[in-house]
Amino acid sequence: MRFVIIGGDAAGMSAASRAKRQAPDMDVVVLEQSRDVSYSACGMPYNIADPERAMDDLVVRRAAVFRDKQGIDLKTGHRVDAIDPATQTVRGQSADQGPFAIGYDKLLIATGASPLIPAIAGMDLPGTVALKSLEDGRRIKAFLATQPVKKALIIGMGYIAMEMAEALRQRGIGVDMIKPGPVLLPWLHPDLAAVVRGELEANGVGLHLGHRITSVTKIPAGLRLVSSGLQLDADLVLVAMGVAPNSQLAQDAGLALGPGGAIAVDRRLCTSDPDIFAAGDCADAYHVVTGQKVWIPLALRANRAGWAVADNVTGRAVELPGVAGTAVFKVFDLEVARTGLNLAEAKAAGFAPVETVIQSRSRAHAHPGATTIRVQMVGDKKSGRLLGVQMVGKEGVAHRINAPAVALHAGMSVAEFAQCDLAYAPPFGPVWDPLLTAANQLLKK
Amino acid sequence: MRFVIIGGDAAGMSAASRAKRQAPDMDVVVLEQSRDVSYSACGMPYNIADPERAMDDLVVRRAAVFRDKQGIDLKTGHRVDAIDPATQTVRGQSADQGPFAIGYDKLLIATGASPLIPAIAGMDLPGTVALKSLEDGRRIKAFLATQPVKKALIIGMGYIAMEMAEALRQRGIGVDMIKPGPVLLPWLHPDLAAVVRGELEANGVGLHLGHRITSVTKIPAGLRLVSSGLQLDADLVLVAMGVAPNSQLAQDAGLALGPGGAIAVDRRLCTSDPDIFAAGDCADAYHVVTGQKVWIPLALRANRAGWAVADNVTGRAVELPGVAGTAVFKVFDLEVARTGLNLAEAKAAGFAPVETVIQSRSRAHAHPGATTIRVQMVGDKKSGRLLGVQMVGKEGVAHRINAPAVALHAGMSVAEFAQCDLAYAPPFGPVWDPLLTAANQLLKK
Repeated sequence: MRFVIIGGDAAGMSAASRAKRQAPDMDVVVLEQSRDVSYSACGMPYNIADPERAMDDLVVRRAAVFRDKQGIDLKTGHRVDAIDPATQTVRGQSADQGPFAIGYDKLLIATGASPLIPAIAGMDLPGTVALKSLEDGRRIKAFLATQPVKKALIIGMGYIAMEMAEALRQRGIGVDMIKPGPVLLPWLHPDLAAVVRGELEANGVGLHLGHRITSVTKIPAGLRLVSSGLQLDADLVLVAMGVAPNSQLAQDAGLALGPGGAIAVDRRLCTSDPDIFAAGDCADAYHVVTGQKVWIPLALRANRAGWAVADNVTGRAVELPGVAGTAVFKVFDLEVARTGLNLAEAKAAGFAPVETVIQSRSRAHAHPGATTIRVQMVGDKKSGRLLGVQMVGKEGVAHRINAPAVALHAGMSVAEFAQCDLAYAPPFGPVWDPLLTAANQLLKK
Repeated sequence: MRFVIIGGDAAGMSAASRAKRQAPDMDVVVLEQSRDVSYSACGMPYNIADPERAMDDLVVRRAAVFRDKQGIDLKTGHRVDAIDPATQTVRGQSADQGPFAIGYDKLLIATGASPLIPAIAGMDLPGTVALKSLEDGRRIKAFLATQPVKKALIIGMGYIAMEMAEALRQRGIGVDMIKPGPVLLPWLHPDLAAVVRGELEANGVGLHLGHRITSVTKIPAGLRLVSSGLQLDADLVLVAMGVAPNSQLAQDAGLALGPGGAIAVDRRLCTSDPDIFAAGDCADAYHVVTGQKVWIPLALRANRAGWAVADNVTGRAVELPGVAGTAVFKVFDLEVARTGLNLAEAKAAGFAPVETVIQSRSRAHAHPGATTIRVQMVGDKKSGRLLGVQMVGKEGVAHRINAPAVALHAGMSVAEFAQCDLAYAPPFGPVWDPLLTAANQLLKK
């Protein structure tokens, strides 16, 4: 049996490795258009921050290991252009060998996502970059190493935009951020978003919201971005406006798409064709709170979905419960985390949500070094169910979010969560953990 | 109606405050034998570490606030000697006014716990101390401020012993620890306990296990501890062998006792007398994993139980689900945490437990500053249920333990926990959180 995988990143290589481990006789073929497989994409901003580190430090496992040690037929430089479900064949171009066609018994589409690039002039100018692939990372790092970059401009204000703002500031580069929308982190409660804004500004990042961007042009001193009401010059322009799922191949093959244009999959990661699976940033998922389809591209899901596809392809029937949308990022000294639904998402999903925002401390009463932790919590007034949590603070946020994430998976009520026996010691929080304080406050509503 | 509370620490004052808030007309009387109420007992080691800080910084709310602002009849310096359930009366001695007797409609026993003191000579010598009350803390701090203490000896190796070892080392004092038992932290998996041992030794703490202690005597240069096979001299001897519940009053009044000699209470915190409640370190609890009674004296439970008693006394019927035994402590640069059952406890409770111990990293692949995290996880081979988790590491342990704690409350299986959508970003852990890696490994068994 031949198992063909399109895409050699998190989902694709997780599936390939596990399939080969569980079924050593299976013919496992991976078609990857770039020369890179199995690297820590999320680590790129931190790598870029440090001129001394090589971008290739982020490679977790080299192609040769997959080929020689694991027996995976890994074909890099192979771009797939079409899938024909009728004949169970994929066709494409190899960088070295020209056109190819290969038949499959089972197929996994793990094509990931691509950065959104605005349809304006100047996106192809040298010094205008996006950050998605390791090759993008190498390009940015080489540019910073060879060009005198004093000022960078970031289009967008999401996770990666903020991580890159920090990375560039660490290298002593001035950073401005600009976006068309009027609200910083619109998914985050305004009180918490205000803290993030303060942290960015305290670190010298200029924030320009509500400016429609019209062009980037070359000027003698570098690049010039023109927008409604504002003109900014910089040496480097980074486009970080979010990503879109690479689902064109699937759509062309007649497969059903889901939210955000991602490839629709069931709990077994199977697409609308029973022999074709999809996993990773190109595929959708069920949300554990709403039971509805969502597209939330995140690394853990990609790895987990890759494994589940391998299980299903090798005969172990596996269903994934879905995602809670748990995410965390660091921006300068701040940790920002979320899980589940915010108020607007909860309303849209048909709940009768109520929310609370509390302030607590990261360490116990009178313990030195305590900082403020803010917790937002959403519950359903009708059922009492916990729906979501957001947190912002300088310590103790990133791992704390996992407790409500587990509660969401368990379908706990706010009252049940409020009774959980959480850890306490003075260096790590107050006796009443900030999460419990939030739950107790929310119960009053 | 008169609600009388014996003991003015966490459970007692939580109950008093909440009862008065919910029923302003209720006559709420608190009888506290010391002059201190509402202080952060767990903060004492950290306060002792810093000669510049006053011990009274740990007072959360002063007696006058409870009396004047909250309308609680708080009587400090009032020691209760007897409870007479037949006449609903408590009797005792006031430091200022001599004998007293007071009738109650509802009574809360919140007498806490006392340090275990070995029955050997020398426990009353100046320089031999225990640490439980704020007065103990003041005494230790005054001793350190006025005496030339170069060397301290700690009898016992539990949480408080370790926190005090760190505090004393921070003040430049040499520390030796001694205990009769042969095993460091017997509840902790040996691989994890070895890491704690290494951390103590790396910080210059001498560890002497398996020595039966026979006496402490005064010598010209300070104090001398004599034990089987070892003699140690020191300027300060701290007894930190654990605590016992202060349940004598309850026992004398004919109330039923539970595990560890703690006062037996039901889920409403009611003792075997329907008008008498008990809460805090003197009372037992149900374990959420076994459903059986346990005595695990911890601060969060004390506060929560105090609230629940207030609810029940003021007419809201409240039942507490119980404890998971979640605990964390810091020892030098190490965080040590647990929740639920270890292997021996799981066996004793009738499960068919299997365990795994994994090593992972505190940050993502190639992220600078990563350290080792060790996770031990126990599951039930028959039901697949998650039973307990232990963790040791230099970062990301304290709050990470709350995720499995919530899972224990929810009665999740290891397989369900392994599918939870936990947060990922490179500064905070690998894509597969160490907890998920442990769960995946445990599933193979």
